[in-house]
Amino acid sequence: MDSYLIRVNGQGDHAPMLDVHLKTNGNSISLGKMKARKPRWAVRASEMSKKTFNPVRAIVDSMKVEPNPKKAMISLSLGDPTVFGNLPTNDEVTRAVKEVLDSGRYNGYAPSVGYQSCREAVAAYYNCPEAPLKAQDVILTSGCSQAIELALAVLANPGQNILVPRPGFSLYKTLALSMGIEVKLYNLLPEKAWEIDLEHLESLVDEKTACLIVNNPSNPCGSVFSKNHLQKILAVAARQCVPILADEIYGDMVFADCKYEPIATLSTNVPILSCGGLAKRWLVPGWRMGWILIHDRRDIFGNEIRDGLLRLSQRILGPCTLVQGALERILQQTPPEFYHNTLSILKSNADLCYAALSAIPGLQPVRPAGAMYLMVGIEMEHFPEFENDVEFTERLISEQSVFCLPASCFEYPNFFRVVITVPEEMILEACGRIQEFCEMHYQGAEGAQDLECDK
Amino acid sequence: MDSYLIRVNGQGDHAPMLDVHLKTNGNSISLGKMKARKPRWAVRASEMSKKTFNPVRAIVDSMKVEPNPKKAMISLSLGDPTVFGNLPTNDEVTRAVKEVLDSGRYNGYAPSVGYQSCREAVAAYYNCPEAPLKAQDVILTSGCSQAIELALAVLANPGQNILVPRPGFSLYKTLALSMGIEVKLYNLLPEKAWEIDLEHLESLVDEKTACLIVNNPSNPCGSVFSKNHLQKILAVAARQCVPILADEIYGDMVFADCKYEPIATLSTNVPILSCGGLAKRWLVPGWRMGWILIHDRRDIFGNEIRDGLLRLSQRILGPCTLVQGALERILQQTPPEFYHNTLSILKSNADLCYAALSAIPGLQPVRPAGAMYLMVGIEMEHFPEFENDVEFTERLISEQSVFCLPASCFEYPNFFRVVITVPEEMILEACGRIQEFCEMHYQGAEGAQDLECDK
Repeated sequence: MDSYLIRVNGQGDHAPMLDVHLKTNGNSISLGKMKARKPRWAVRASEMSKKTFNPVRAIVDSMKVEPNPKKAMISLSLGDPTVFGNLPTNDEVTRAVKEVLDSGRYNGYAPSVGYQSCREAVAAYYNCPEAPLKAQDVILTSGCSQAIELALAVLANPGQNILVPRPGFSLYKTLALSMGIEVKLYNLLPEKAWEIDLEHLESLVDEKTACLIVNNPSNPCGSVFSKNHLQKILAVAARQCVPILADEIYGDMVFADCKYEPIATLSTNVPILSCGGLAKRWLVPGWRMGWILIHDRRDIFGNEIRDGLLRLSQRILGPCTLVQGALERILQQTPPEFYHNTLSILKSNADLCYAALSAIPGLQPVRPAGAMYLMVGIEMEHFPEFENDVEFTERLISEQSVFCLPASCFEYPNFFRVVITVPEEMILEACGRIQEFCEMHYQGAEGAQDLECDK
Repeated sequence: MDSYLIRVNGQGDHAPMLDVHLKTNGNSISLGKMKARKPRWAVRASEMSKKTFNPVRAIVDSMKVEPNPKKAMISLSLGDPTVFGNLPTNDEVTRAVKEVLDSGRYNGYAPSVGYQSCREAVAAYYNCPEAPLKAQDVILTSGCSQAIELALAVLANPGQNILVPRPGFSLYKTLALSMGIEVKLYNLLPEKAWEIDLEHLESLVDEKTACLIVNNPSNPCGSVFSKNHLQKILAVAARQCVPILADEIYGDMVFADCKYEPIATLSTNVPILSCGGLAKRWLVPGWRMGWILIHDRRDIFGNEIRDGLLRLSQRILGPCTLVQGALERILQQTPPEFYHNTLSILKSNADLCYAALSAIPGLQPVRPAGAMYLMVGIEMEHFPEFENDVEFTERLISEQSVFCLPASCFEYPNFFRVVITVPEEMILEACGRIQEFCEMHYQGAEGAQDLECDK
């Protein structure tokens, strides 16, 4: 027999080595006589993997409900505009990649921050007098998710904190917690079209604040900040000396009555890492083409942040070279009608959906101005059967086969999010079913009493 | 005037708040009268970004040499088989992606671990009785780099260590250090065709060892382990209960007189994460299509490691969906002649290069058996002009315009690495120039004395 070493993956406290002295036929065998230590298998997943937590997955996976078998499922849950085939990308976009394939010139490794010519193409596309950009200010990434990951990884150390919108896209928190960065949630105000509660925002800044995430246009809100509001946000950042991580993946996706302002065009002093990509506007989220635009006109990031981004990019290298090679043509040749068409469909769906849901007792939709979403408040006091938004949306699935994400996924209970990229007839059908559902469960002040009396 | 708060990105010790009391016109203004604290900009790159260190970049960037303007540059430094156009990918591979583009069905988000059908395709391709694989055992990644990153990130905590081959691919260390994981280098033995020094390997294992990286076929050595040697490596892992991270990106790329054995086919008990991808064998490294194959027949990784990999994959999502969609066809339809052709070119180049360099006094090439590389020992005592391999290769550039990576890049001084994917005439020209260079600088025992006498 052997003595055992109990091996445990270190988690701060190191595994003790247990010397087990065994008795054999009454004779104690000392360790010295042991042939060799004999470890045991004890492979544990790392702390980082355990801290990597996707709240959407956790909430959705916990929703153990079957849709109503009598009704076809309508999913308004996924922020993927390609699901229903009603919003294909433009032919020019596809052709650009085919041309790259035919050339055979984009199969090799690109530099980890992307081909110089592709960085130039992105810089040229977003360059403007208010926020000039050169190739060296662009870092190409594997989707906007990696852009956000790199930006966070370069700006924040474990133990620092970042300021994140509530409601907000869950990835910020997932990434931050996996890196040991604290998340401080600042409030968006539904009654002010989801503007930031600036006082609340500023109250959260402390000496450990590494950056402020501004997501505009917003997922999940579909809101678009005015120039004036963005200037106020910049004023907070400037006053507190907090750099901005701008998630602008829905940039330019705003309805006709509204104007999108890249936040970097409104500031000359706040250093900004703006994250974007092809995913939403060009309707190819699976292609994983993202970028970071470095805006640093006062040289506050300086070489240190640029070098840091370069180093971090070398960990897994950048995006697929087929899409990189196509980037210039995609940006330059996609016809403007394509963007307009997408937006007019989204606007029309948003209007239909907003009008239909506004008419339903107990629901409080907030009119969107861009992106692909609409948030709907649930007057929970009128739906006493349901504990919260998760239960509400669960029952909406089991009774009406309509799946909307409960806004608990975005740290914002008692709301749900509707995706408006689906075909019009599906939006209308879904709204009809939501209406039926709410009428079935709504309890007005009197209604609630009637129910009591009936018993 | 305001008092200043000096803000520093936290690095364990928190930034002190300095209250600066200023004198204005002889009157000291106390803090209480200040309108507001006024922070200063002090954005610092994170510790992680500073710890992310690519030794190849650092060494190459420090080599400030100009090639000889009279000779065209021949670069034998980059492990990218696409650079010279002599090794194009197969038409079937390109056609598969075009078909995906035409279908328009692969533009949306895939699951973060890859499409189920694509995971099935990879599982089916590598499945065998000795190491059965199902779709759930496959995780698709953005290149083999991300595969290695995820595998390390799930297996090791900061403060633990991993066992890494010397000489070895620099990414292991780059990734490990960026995650705070210690690297312990085990020796490969050039005199035994770069087999592992198993005693040295085993001596490095301690209670904090999280995994053993086995790279076969090897970059930079071009060596291929025999079945017998792999079994001995597995015996060490089994005895020490250390899981294996197998970097098998050059899997199947072995010359005709040699057989490649996936390490997982030789073990029934050691848990193995095998990392691979399309990059090398299909000659499309820029496409960033990699995978992890989970081999865990004794359920030692269990759900914990699988869940951990799933969670980590959600941080930036997986590889480009265009390539995912093409994967099944690429794996099934690429004609065998394509692989054979690549290998016969590599074998021929390896033989030419080995023969030519063997004839050069002062050089000791080690014959490769696979992959795309050949390592060459420099008998430094015969080149007294040069301090080390970096100086040797620097001068080779400035005099002969031939660029080989000094093996210091792989933690193995006094060797250099030759990439053998270049066209034959280029290999021959390069070998000729290396010969001229060595003859110019070689000092035999007598020669060295002659030199002394001449003075």
